[in-house]
Amino acid sequence: MSDREGATATGPVLARALRILSTFDTDRRAMTLSEISRQAEIPVSTVHRLVAELAAWGALERGGDGRYRVGLRLWQVGALAPRGQGLREIALPFLEDLSQITRENVQLAVREGTELVFIERIAGSEAVPVLTRVGGRFALTATGVGLVLLAHAPTEVQDEVLSGPIDRYTECTVTDPHSLRRMLADVRTTGFSISDRQVTMDALSVAAPIHSGRGHVIAAVSLVVHHGTVSPHSLAPLVQTSARAISRTLSGAA
Amino acid sequence: MSDREGATATGPVLARALRILSTFDTDRRAMTLSEISRQAEIPVSTVHRLVAELAAWGALERGGDGRYRVGLRLWQVGALAPRGQGLREIALPFLEDLSQITRENVQLAVREGTELVFIERIAGSEAVPVLTRVGGRFALTATGVGLVLLAHAPTEVQDEVLSGPIDRYTECTVTDPHSLRRMLADVRTTGFSISDRQVTMDALSVAAPIHSGRGHVIAAVSLVVHHGTVSPHSLAPLVQTSARAISRTLSGAA
Repeated sequence: MSDREGATATGPVLARALRILSTFDTDRRAMTLSEISRQAEIPVSTVHRLVAELAAWGALERGGDGRYRVGLRLWQVGALAPRGQGLREIALPFLEDLSQITRENVQLAVREGTELVFIERIAGSEAVPVLTRVGGRFALTATGVGLVLLAHAPTEVQDEVLSGPIDRYTECTVTDPHSLRRMLADVRTTGFSISDRQVTMDALSVAAPIHSGRGHVIAAVSLVVHHGTVSPHSLAPLVQTSARAISRTLSGAA
Repeated sequence: MSDREGATATGPVLARALRILSTFDTDRRAMTLSEISRQAEIPVSTVHRLVAELAAWGALERGGDGRYRVGLRLWQVGALAPRGQGLREIALPFLEDLSQITRENVQLAVREGTELVFIERIAGSEAVPVLTRVGGRFALTATGVGLVLLAHAPTEVQDEVLSGPIDRYTECTVTDPHSLRRMLADVRTTGFSISDRQVTMDALSVAAPIHSGRGHVIAAVSLVVHHGTVSPHSLAPLVQTSARAISRTLSGAA
């Protein structure tokens, strides 16, 4: 490392440590030092030093196989995130009710920039398979929860999403910005969204917004069912009632 | 900052950033820069710089009130921890079954050093109130899950816990190391633990171990019920069956 780099070393150290944490993902839950080095594009000697410090604190854990995984301490601190675990704990009883009454898939998501993050999902016992994972990200344009979150996002976020490339998942995915803008206006008017075979050809989802105490839409809840088995308009009141119950409890807890 | 400090600055930067994250807790979920500075014992100018970098990455989030909270990005990375979210996702359906069948409190915990960490808890609808929080820590010596985890901990962990000060919660809390050692031997023999009014005078818990694919005890599951309503020995087979089902699924998933 050059002297010049050393002189500004307070900068890159934290950025590099965070880049190391960013290399862990659903598909990369356990990595050796050299795998982390390759993924983070940081020399292995530096990775060695930073990982040792992260592991000493508990952000990473070394397994019997010599590979590193995300540590329990990081999970514990993450559990303090109001928009993650906090929201999840308040919503969970309502999501469980919805799941037990319908036996379908229930999802809870929040917006993070121009994508959504799934906070909870309960798989219905005989429900259509869904690929969502807690902590996983997804496009705002395709799912029921995504359409609700996008409909209530700031104008600049909507503009960015609708002017960018819009992923197509099936032949039913709506990718035309003008059609999407009309759908978002409908979501704001009716109070719920319908995603009909826009993610997979066998699934349909109906979602409704969860409001904070101050009236902002902070999350969305949805039911994901087999396409063709139920009318989406018969599901909407159920999802809306559940979303309102969660909103009410959030206001009380705020 | 002196030249000398600058030269070794790669060291303290990450340590200080982690110390900042450590200041967040159940009782301190939202803090101003000066509160963080006071809690972390780091000058406010340094906190300002580190928090800005942590917030840019998403480890912290600044609210409308100017206070900082743990961010969604940290929750997302934490959700990759195998001993946290990974275990939780596999165990949740079984915990929900146990909760619905008994209508009592269900808890899932792992050992972290000389304490336990609660990974999940489901509150029974008419059950005895419990104070556990997901991500929260507790002594290994008092609860049902704690006794299971301690009984199967390495000898040096047992020695450290039993030679240290042992917290007393009620008049029923066992704090004598010799009595505790006998209880731990019983737990290993019978395959379950009973904590009778050792945490609060109205509650009793029965816990059983969850094994990894390689036979190690990696977690414990418990039912927490009103003292005096049910015989703990009638609960044990239920908790053990649930623990075994989770162990079996973990082995399959490993």
